[in-house]
Amino acid sequence: MPRYLERGVFTYDTPPKIESFAAVVGEKEGKGPLGDFFDKIVTDSHFGQKTWEQAESRFQLEAVSLAVRKAQLTKEDIDIICAGDLINQCTGSTYGLRQLEIPFLGLYGACSTMAEGLITASILADSGAAKRTAAVTSSHFSTAERQFRAPLSYGGQRTPTSQWTCTASGAVIVSAEKGEIAVTGGCIGRIADMDVTDITNMGAAMAPAAMDTLCRYFKTTGTSPADYDIIVTGDLGSVGSKLLGELMEKQGYDITQVHQDCGEMIYNIDEQDAHCGGSGCGCSASVLCGYYLPMLQKGAVKRLLFAATGALMSVMSVQQGESIPAISHLVELRRAE
Amino acid sequence: MPRYLERGVFTYDTPPKIESFAAVVGEKEGKGPLGDFFDKIVTDSHFGQKTWEQAESRFQLEAVSLAVRKAQLTKEDIDIICAGDLINQCTGSTYGLRQLEIPFLGLYGACSTMAEGLITASILADSGAAKRTAAVTSSHFSTAERQFRAPLSYGGQRTPTSQWTCTASGAVIVSAEKGEIAVTGGCIGRIADMDVTDITNMGAAMAPAAMDTLCRYFKTTGTSPADYDIIVTGDLGSVGSKLLGELMEKQGYDITQVHQDCGEMIYNIDEQDAHCGGSGCGCSASVLCGYYLPMLQKGAVKRLLFAATGALMSVMSVQQGESIPAISHLVELRRAE
Repeated sequence: MPRYLERGVFTYDTPPKIESFAAVVGEKEGKGPLGDFFDKIVTDSHFGQKTWEQAESRFQLEAVSLAVRKAQLTKEDIDIICAGDLINQCTGSTYGLRQLEIPFLGLYGACSTMAEGLITASILADSGAAKRTAAVTSSHFSTAERQFRAPLSYGGQRTPTSQWTCTASGAVIVSAEKGEIAVTGGCIGRIADMDVTDITNMGAAMAPAAMDTLCRYFKTTGTSPADYDIIVTGDLGSVGSKLLGELMEKQGYDITQVHQDCGEMIYNIDEQDAHCGGSGCGCSASVLCGYYLPMLQKGAVKRLLFAATGALMSVMSVQQGESIPAISHLVELRRAE
Repeated sequence: MPRYLERGVFTYDTPPKIESFAAVVGEKEGKGPLGDFFDKIVTDSHFGQKTWEQAESRFQLEAVSLAVRKAQLTKEDIDIICAGDLINQCTGSTYGLRQLEIPFLGLYGACSTMAEGLITASILADSGAAKRTAAVTSSHFSTAERQFRAPLSYGGQRTPTSQWTCTASGAVIVSAEKGEIAVTGGCIGRIADMDVTDITNMGAAMAPAAMDTLCRYFKTTGTSPADYDIIVTGDLGSVGSKLLGELMEKQGYDITQVHQDCGEMIYNIDEQDAHCGGSGCGCSASVLCGYYLPMLQKGAVKRLLFAATGALMSVMSVQQGESIPAISHLVELRRAE
């Protein structure tokens, strides 16, 4: 059972486990510095489908299927799947996973979805409502560009603070009993809105949400950055990461020694023309599943915080002059003892 | 703790409770046959805001605030809020609830969101991760029309099988201990896709999902329609409700004596020009919170199934020639003993 610490913050006495995981990414992500860590690199941006939206759905299906196969399970072994993505009405998930016939909980957390899914899947597995659950999310550069920005063929100029939406998916299977990585705690984010209106500077909009979540978790658990081997955010990019460091310092926490950001890591930012780094639900999901979970599994990392961040605006809310609310959900992961 | 029955299906030995609830609706809904049951009728479709989207957000905020006040609580008493809606990127919820600063779990279940929220909020409260949780959702005729169909000023003709998106919101507060209505079981839906492509006939697309969920719940709990005072669906409308009756009969279940549909009930269908009835996340949410939960609270109804249904397509998926996947989540509610 989770141990209640404060509103939205809890730890587990007997933590649920991560039994399996998989990351599937596109060509650009495969050519980045983490390329060797992903389970599969798909060089065709259409993934054999007619549309980019169908391709994104296929990325999710592939990530889940791989995670299931890696644990020598079948889809019937998964009781509940928690999924969401950035496409309007989350069709990346609903169309991608419909053929699996697994009981489905749709989530919307923008780029924080992997952490939200992990929290939800862990609580479901721990509660006894399910024996084994899965969490999955995805993003696709081309579906995001045309939905949130402009048609690709328009060839719009990118600003220096912009991030590049990753074509990627990550999937995790959670079990109450089996697995080498323990989900030892969680913090459900509060919506933070600091009146940022520049949709080409998501890092600035999301950094305050990450700060709020990290501070709440440190305070209620009585821990500090030094207690963790790595504190991972996804995906603040270089501008947002710098800002988070400054915001945390003002709160009395120095995270600079242990902080890493999935958005900064997935691309060779200069060589790959990624400006401030990667973004999209698939960025933190694929970096978690491809890079960090294997490190935890091997014991190379013992204790890690994964705080994924999401910007919760829509094209219409921006057109209506609204600011950009953001959220950050967090899970604590440890090598299971 | 939930008792695991089958994939996605569970009951509670010590069920979490519904401590409070509220329903806020628009003018048309207020003039319908259930008008006297809602907590608040807002005749201004803009609810004092500049845009319909902001109005929908205000409906959610109002429903949550009312539910909180009715239980003599403050917003600080709510540990986690589960919310979602139909607007792209669920901005009805994120913008509506951001000022509350309550830890926020974003959901996407289209018109099934109230049931998905109740399931999630109940499991969170029961698990011990939270003491008190809330679930809320909304829809607005004008935000849905312009997003999913055409600008209102275009004056498009409605087909006979179309449904009218309700301007409404419903909110529920769940507690592990306190409350007169017990959430005694739940069934997380599987995505059903019967190749329906007519987006003006959602009832036909969603009825198979409701059938799947109801049959799974009957089979695993060893119950039949006769065990329930009322089986509520939301929102199949008149075409979908008739179809569900036929589909259930083929499965060996006669639900006709106990079946009621929120979409059929919220309007005087002929007089109010509502064609097949109401729809939208706010339809089943407001009818549940305004009409059914008070009946359960008073003991006029002892045992009720609430199976909300959602169609999971987007404008783009339809433009790309895709069929309409649907889902139905279910909760069992009883007068707490």
